[in-house]
Amino acid sequence: MLIQEPQQDTKRNWQPVIQAFEAILGKNGVVRKREELLVYECDGLTSYRNRPSVVVLPRTTEDVAALVKVCDRYSIPFVARGSGTGLSGGALPTDDCVLIVTALMKRILDIDLENQRVVVQPGVINNWVTQAVSGAGFYYAPDPSSQIICSVGGNVAENSGGVHCLKYGVTTNHVLGLKLVLPDGSIVDVGGTVPEMPGYDLTGLFVGSEGTLGIATEITLKILKTPESVRVLLADFTSVEAAGATVSDIISAGIIPGGMEMMDNFSINAVEDVVCTNCYPRDAEAILLVEVDGLEIEAAANSQRVEAICFQNGARSVRIATDVEERLTLWKGRKAAFAAMGKISPDYYVQDGVIPRTKLEYVLKTIAELGDKHGYNVANVFHAGDGNLHPLILYDNAVPGALEQVESLGGAILKLCVQVGGSISGEHGIGADKRCYMPEMFSEPDLETMQWVRQTFNPKELANPGKIFPTPRTCGEGANASVSKQFESVEQF
Amino acid sequence: MLIQEPQQDTKRNWQPVIQAFEAILGKNGVVRKREELLVYECDGLTSYRNRPSVVVLPRTTEDVAALVKVCDRYSIPFVARGSGTGLSGGALPTDDCVLIVTALMKRILDIDLENQRVVVQPGVINNWVTQAVSGAGFYYAPDPSSQIICSVGGNVAENSGGVHCLKYGVTTNHVLGLKLVLPDGSIVDVGGTVPEMPGYDLTGLFVGSEGTLGIATEITLKILKTPESVRVLLADFTSVEAAGATVSDIISAGIIPGGMEMMDNFSINAVEDVVCTNCYPRDAEAILLVEVDGLEIEAAANSQRVEAICFQNGARSVRIATDVEERLTLWKGRKAAFAAMGKISPDYYVQDGVIPRTKLEYVLKTIAELGDKHGYNVANVFHAGDGNLHPLILYDNAVPGALEQVESLGGAILKLCVQVGGSISGEHGIGADKRCYMPEMFSEPDLETMQWVRQTFNPKELANPGKIFPTPRTCGEGANASVSKQFESVEQF
Repeated sequence: MLIQEPQQDTKRNWQPVIQAFEAILGKNGVVRKREELLVYECDGLTSYRNRPSVVVLPRTTEDVAALVKVCDRYSIPFVARGSGTGLSGGALPTDDCVLIVTALMKRILDIDLENQRVVVQPGVINNWVTQAVSGAGFYYAPDPSSQIICSVGGNVAENSGGVHCLKYGVTTNHVLGLKLVLPDGSIVDVGGTVPEMPGYDLTGLFVGSEGTLGIATEITLKILKTPESVRVLLADFTSVEAAGATVSDIISAGIIPGGMEMMDNFSINAVEDVVCTNCYPRDAEAILLVEVDGLEIEAAANSQRVEAICFQNGARSVRIATDVEERLTLWKGRKAAFAAMGKISPDYYVQDGVIPRTKLEYVLKTIAELGDKHGYNVANVFHAGDGNLHPLILYDNAVPGALEQVESLGGAILKLCVQVGGSISGEHGIGADKRCYMPEMFSEPDLETMQWVRQTFNPKELANPGKIFPTPRTCGEGANASVSKQFESVEQF
Repeated sequence: MLIQEPQQDTKRNWQPVIQAFEAILGKNGVVRKREELLVYECDGLTSYRNRPSVVVLPRTTEDVAALVKVCDRYSIPFVARGSGTGLSGGALPTDDCVLIVTALMKRILDIDLENQRVVVQPGVINNWVTQAVSGAGFYYAPDPSSQIICSVGGNVAENSGGVHCLKYGVTTNHVLGLKLVLPDGSIVDVGGTVPEMPGYDLTGLFVGSEGTLGIATEITLKILKTPESVRVLLADFTSVEAAGATVSDIISAGIIPGGMEMMDNFSINAVEDVVCTNCYPRDAEAILLVEVDGLEIEAAANSQRVEAICFQNGARSVRIATDVEERLTLWKGRKAAFAAMGKISPDYYVQDGVIPRTKLEYVLKTIAELGDKHGYNVANVFHAGDGNLHPLILYDNAVPGALEQVESLGGAILKLCVQVGGSISGEHGIGADKRCYMPEMFSEPDLETMQWVRQTFNPKELANPGKIFPTPRTCGEGANASVSKQFESVEQF
């Protein structure tokens, strides 16, 4: 666990740097006051904190390029930050760094409905894209829970997912092209305005690279036609196994729901206690929320099929919402589940792992056992359709040693995900939080190959250092020999 | 145009190299006789030919790694080749090269129906994947026209598309992970068995890299559930404009057909002359073939909607095929269209470009004008739904200067595609054929950024040299200053 003290300003002479920044942005674009820097100490992963030396607020690609060139000239590390809602510490400032905040880069630059494309600056809020095109019958598919505040730039950095990514894919499937400022301050374009572009797929490489290869300053997104009809089903089960088997059976039947979410008994009761009464049945061991969409005739048919599969697997009841209001009621508890945890527990730690759907029952049972063993309640609220788990570990940070125990439990859950053939991150990224687990998933040569790419784009390691990749200092020389060994070879590169 | 003479064996002392190869593969795995090498002189782009110095036939990842290590040790360029059906010369041998042919790497290594994954060696034929899983109700979606002979490894190299990629995406959307032999002979794994993997998306980077970053020796593919119902509609139009408007209207209605193909009058008549009588109406200016799939109820509804849109746009008739036999009849002419051209003309040159759907009418009209200006017939048979054109230029190679004229016409068509905001390649790759057009699409810094990646993985430029990127020698110093300038800077890298 790494909680760094807000650092003292280092011996670096910031004066010429600040002057250069102010020459680019004016005095208002450069934040230096300690109290104003406070808010930038962490992102959504609040247990990691570190104060940046300076915050800059560019408005254009050229601003970003000029700022990065100054960082390059003075060899100052820089970290890009969108809305700061990320959950893996991807936007955690590092020692002595410049934080490049895209909050003022919030213009929608182009809307091309005919070709189903929207071009945005990185600070544009995810939900604004849909708002801008919904009148014409379009929407932007990736929908993280934080979509009313998270930025598209942050989504690109972390390759964010959401409830509807089961059917429509995560952020990378919806980005056609990017204008990038590379870590040396040069500006390049990758991808384009049509889906298939020749040459290397640098757009795909960049999406999910968590700010370690540069900063996206213009993003071309694909938008989709709003489906004619949407239905949401709420099914309740007396066992987690039955709910898990239902998920598998729905997919096996060839149905790809828009979203398919599961909540366990603990989460159901947390929601009932705090958010809404009679949203969900308190005595259910698990509920499934299944959204089907498409043509009216298709949504109706699929909703009937899903209902039948739920009953075949022993669902006690299935409620179907067809109109908007009813749908929102069914989703309400799910959407507020994390907030509910925040109210019933002083603190909670969200984990994000992926497992093959077929291992759902085994993994949920083992997570419960691990929770018992460590003495913590673990709530499960997650994207069941694509096996993307979000175990929430409830704890009290005021209890000495609790955070360390919770992190150890979180680590055990990640290892379990890898053990069954899954992944240590579904949609939150690796950031600062999970880099020590990368060797669980990747061999030394595999990680080294990724490092080659980082070294190529970011040879001075100024762009978001200390993210994604394990380092001996943080992850421990002894704890994981492969980490330090791997780094030796990378440093020779 | 580059037709290289079959080269004389160079001054290189091949003896120790051949010995090393034979030690790895045995004598049968190494081909050296001139007459046996003949068949490897070109791929599907037959106008480019070059004889390799030696052909090797590995069976395993370890074989490939050992062979590549020998190439690395002796600094010998190597080119990987699957079935040799590629249309951009991606598997064209270079001077003094070793051709690594994956024809014996044709084992399906694992089938995991529950998790919808199949692991194959690169020499496995595209269609075998579907054959292996169709009994259980699954299929592999990307379907190039050559799918009964092209290899999955070649598909990965070129990021191949096909008729059904409109709805389901091209090869990159169906590859979960790869085992790779890098150009230094090391073996790494990228991606994995679940769709979202943390770290950089090297799988996406590798797919479509045309053998310039290494060789894929194991490929994990995603398979899909076979749709319950499929219907094919044939609509005939008295103008290309009306057919084009129909394509736009279908997409605007929120329908994503499995495939949506257009053929113009010239192609229709070529097919009627050669392949089948009364397949298509000879007097139609354009026909559309639209395939809709999904639940029976969904396919039926969409087929009705597509039919209505066709009539709204002035279709004279719409024929709908529901059973397999009828569907195959409707597809027959389209599938045999290229072969038909080969029968009515001594030679033809297939171009592959992408345009925004909204520019279809303008581009087809301009292509016809360009054809007239150059004095050649251009037939259009293409994936209309995603704006992926395949103009076929008919010519006679025996006429001196014809090939050069045809290439110039092909180039003018590509420039037109770029001009309207499209791309110089939809699904055939850049290979040796189109590299001189890369500067039409990408600026110097953009191309240089791609070159960084190549240099990183392939620093000695032994892996498939002379592909994708323009070189002054081939593309001309004077012809494109940016090319040579760009290369200067890359060489300094």
